[in-house]
Amino acid sequence: MGSSTADRITVRGHDLVEDLIGKVSLGDMAFLELKGRLPTPKESTVFNALAVTLVEHGMTPSAIAARLTYFGAPESVQGAVAAGLLGIGDRFGGSVEEAARTLQEALAGSDTSPNFGRLANQVVASHKERKRPIAGIGHPIHKPIDPRTPKLFEIAAANGLSGRYVELMSAISVEAGRAYGKELPVNATGAIGAIASELEIPWQVSRGLAVMARAIGLVGHIREELDEPLSAEIWSRVDEESSGR
Amino acid sequence: MGSSTADRITVRGHDLVEDLIGKVSLGDMAFLELKGRLPTPKESTVFNALAVTLVEHGMTPSAIAARLTYFGAPESVQGAVAAGLLGIGDRFGGSVEEAARTLQEALAGSDTSPNFGRLANQVVASHKERKRPIAGIGHPIHKPIDPRTPKLFEIAAANGLSGRYVELMSAISVEAGRAYGKELPVNATGAIGAIASELEIPWQVSRGLAVMARAIGLVGHIREELDEPLSAEIWSRVDEESSGR
Amino acid sequence: MGSSTADRITVRGHDLVEDLIGKVSLGDMAFLELKGRLPTPKESTVFNALAVTLVEHGMTPSAIAARLTYFGAPESVQGAVAAGLLGIGDRFGGSVEEAARTLQEALAGSDTSPNFGRLANQVVASHKERKRPIAGIGHPIHKPIDPRTPKLFEIAAANGLSGRYVELMSAISVEAGRAYGKELPVNATGAIGAIASELEIPWQVSRGLAVMARAIGLVGHIREELDEPLSAEIWSRVDEESSGR
Amino acid sequence: MGSSTADRITVRGHDLVEDLIGKVSLGDMAFLELKGRLPTPKESTVFNALAVTLVEHGMTPSAIAARLTYFGAPESVQGAVAAGLLGIGDRFGGSVEEAARTLQEALAGSDTSPNFGRLANQVVASHKERKRPIAGIGHPIHKPIDPRTPKLFEIAAANGLSGRYVELMSAISVEAGRAYGKELPVNATGAIGAIASELEIPWQVSRGLAVMARAIGLVGHIREELDEPLSAEIWSRVDEESSGR
Repeated sequence: MGSSTADRITVRGHDLVEDLIGKVSLGDMAFLELKGRLPTPKESTVFNALAVTLVEHGMTPSAIAARLTYFGAPESVQGAVAAGLLGIGDRFGGSVEEAARTLQEALAGSDTSPNFGRLANQVVASHKERKRPIAGIGHPIHKPIDPRTPKLFEIAAANGLSGRYVELMSAISVEAGRAYGKELPVNATGAIGAIASELEIPWQVSRGLAVMARAIGLVGHIREELDEPLSAEIWSRVDEESSGR
Repeated sequence: MGSSTADRITVRGHDLVEDLIGKVSLGDMAFLELKGRLPTPKESTVFNALAVTLVEHGMTPSAIAARLTYFGAPESVQGAVAAGLLGIGDRFGGSVEEAARTLQEALAGSDTSPNFGRLANQVVASHKERKRPIAGIGHPIHKPIDPRTPKLFEIAAANGLSGRYVELMSAISVEAGRAYGKELPVNATGAIGAIASELEIPWQVSRGLAVMARAIGLVGHIREELDEPLSAEIWSRVDEESSGR
Repeated sequence: MGSSTADRITVRGHDLVEDLIGKVSLGDMAFLELKGRLPTPKESTVFNALAVTLVEHGMTPSAIAARLTYFGAPESVQGAVAAGLLGIGDRFGGSVEEAARTLQEALAGSDTSPNFGRLANQVVASHKERKRPIAGIGHPIHKPIDPRTPKLFEIAAANGLSGRYVELMSAISVEAGRAYGKELPVNATGAIGAIASELEIPWQVSRGLAVMARAIGLVGHIREELDEPLSAEIWSRVDEESSGR
Repeated sequence: MGSSTADRITVRGHDLVEDLIGKVSLGDMAFLELKGRLPTPKESTVFNALAVTLVEHGMTPSAIAARLTYFGAPESVQGAVAAGLLGIGDRFGGSVEEAARTLQEALAGSDTSPNFGRLANQVVASHKERKRPIAGIGHPIHKPIDPRTPKLFEIAAANGLSGRYVELMSAISVEAGRAYGKELPVNATGAIGAIASELEIPWQVSRGLAVMARAIGLVGHIREELDEPLSAEIWSRVDEESSGR
């Protein structure tokens, strides 16, 4: 949190004007907000890569909601972005959070060289028993593999941030593939959940990472509505069939 | 807007995996969303400075609303951030927007070397006549000057982005000071409105810039609530007097 | 506003337990919140009719946004309803507000028996000059007339609440029809704006009437999503064409 | 859901103009949205009593968030109400939902004359074992008893809607008092959860009941801000201490 007096504004111990404006990028400022300290150059590269990945996913339910809201309330850009963010819940943002949680909980008590195969096996078995899907693996559209995953893993490794969370995530993918008899590669939310864990972002905060990144993408959608509105067309396409008109 | 197929995700003409992840920072991605193209290095420096300035302003009404919402609905980080964003309206985000609008409209029809004093005079007179405050000048707290303003103007100048919008904003401050008989220096929202105009961001989109930056700051507030909750204390401080208990 | 102590809860001067629960209906409670006093039986009939009219309008952009938000964040019914409400802005809720404002401003200074034809003429001329649509008349779908309008006018008249606002609204419809050379009958938002004015609800609050009524309808949409979800289908219908998949 | 054609608007099988406007109250319309059918007179009395109870609770976090949001974005009444609703989450609206769920799940498989003492004992034991609070009993402020509870139970009984859910709720209160060695009377959310269950409202929808009722109360708070704004005072009271100014 920050504070401000007549001639000084402080954000988490840093003087906004002297130390931050013009010196740190928006991504590093986001790191500061989430972690309470500025990133090292390697952390910055990796964190920005995660955030950039989460900005924009095309015409998602969240983006449609933002555009339709702007259609009804053009006086309130903030309302349209807020409406879009409200859809970053258990189904979407929750997937990053759930992957991070699974990894952080599995490794919480373990020593520095855990048996990843055994931990992965326990994770898969416990999900199978409770009939719950495993967050972070498989993808309905991006097949055979989500192209973001190898890219993110490569960037993490090149910057010394591919450690035991990434290793466990990969092991879970292998074990789950065996248990369910089909390819279940790590998807983008799994990669992000694992790498955010390498950055020691608590799993409870990882949904916030998705929310802040998506706010940027949603402003981009509203920006497009200004120039080339799609919302009336979206509405008519939905309403035509649903109301029987 | 982006689109995605089985093996390729595109954001505004750029391949997400090949061209963006690991290559552009979050701030540059935000520029891409707002402008439809990536920034030059100088534009990047200036744009990131604007965005960083807008992230966090301490315990504002918006931050209080986000924290109290998280208190009531801890299951929904997205709801708390959305609630906070909903307060970035006419009074706050609108100030950047209004400053940018005033400048862009005043300079819309003018040639390359306008008479800034005369334009500023017209702006001040027209606001005075309609009894409307002039956006972007004066500040209730930061006196005598808002420390962010000279910093932002310096960064813009150092990167070749201090042109006629900045000049007009400064001229308006001088004319208004004369008309109202008191110091009315350019404040941070005026500086941001002017420099965003130098970056050719349409005034209608400048509120979106505030919204995306503040989303990051609001996640930071929620992050703090996780570790060190203030919301119950905030509530009791408000309610004690209002309910007469 | 209310207050509460250990054994007593008060809402706008009424003891909640003794005077309201079990004694007043939800609609009358809404009247109390908007007006600061309970309605007479005739006011209650008319106010409830207005509110009931505003609850539900089928698959509007607002309802679609609520359903898609629930799809992404099923943990947060409040988020889905909030997302839907955010679309009750200038285009939709604003229409009731604008109609009420036009009528209240036109009649603000007038005596008890104004010349309605002349006032209507002024309203139409002033809108035509500024090239602004007149709120409350015409309708893209309900032709030749919006079936809600005669019903609402009939109920207002039967309860002694059809006075000069209703008369002016009708006169505006006639004058506008003449000025634009086509039938422009009073639509439901015009009728509601006029009758809300008869109830002395300030125009600034009339959007709030739409918001509270629509919250009820949006919960109904979420209720339907629970039993028979349409959101995935809505999404695929929108996304199929927009992403070119 | 409704649909509309040129001359007819239908809401859940009822012709809006012929059957609903002027014939049903807002509370009965809400019942229709939640249940898919109109209430009997007795159901109407009980349902309206529940809804009225939930409208307004004074200066809650949700009401403060709505007022502060309106302060920042006076152009958007819908945004202020939405911000307030976003706080009706697990902690507040969730309490009604959780009470209803506990009762509905406990009685799901049971026959028509269950042993309430034994069921209550199981509920209390299972919560105690998981160290989870029991929803619907005890209250930090309203002591010794929440005055709304006996009123709601009395209205339910007088209208033939006090059955096994109410009985189980009361039994849980007794058992919990014994298990924890202190008075834990049924509070308003427990009474509402139980009586909503008597009305066969699924527990998943009971939070929606709180959300729709509270939307009305939040419009009332915004209404007050128009006449007699408290938000600036609220802000200064919070910020004074938190920022150390």
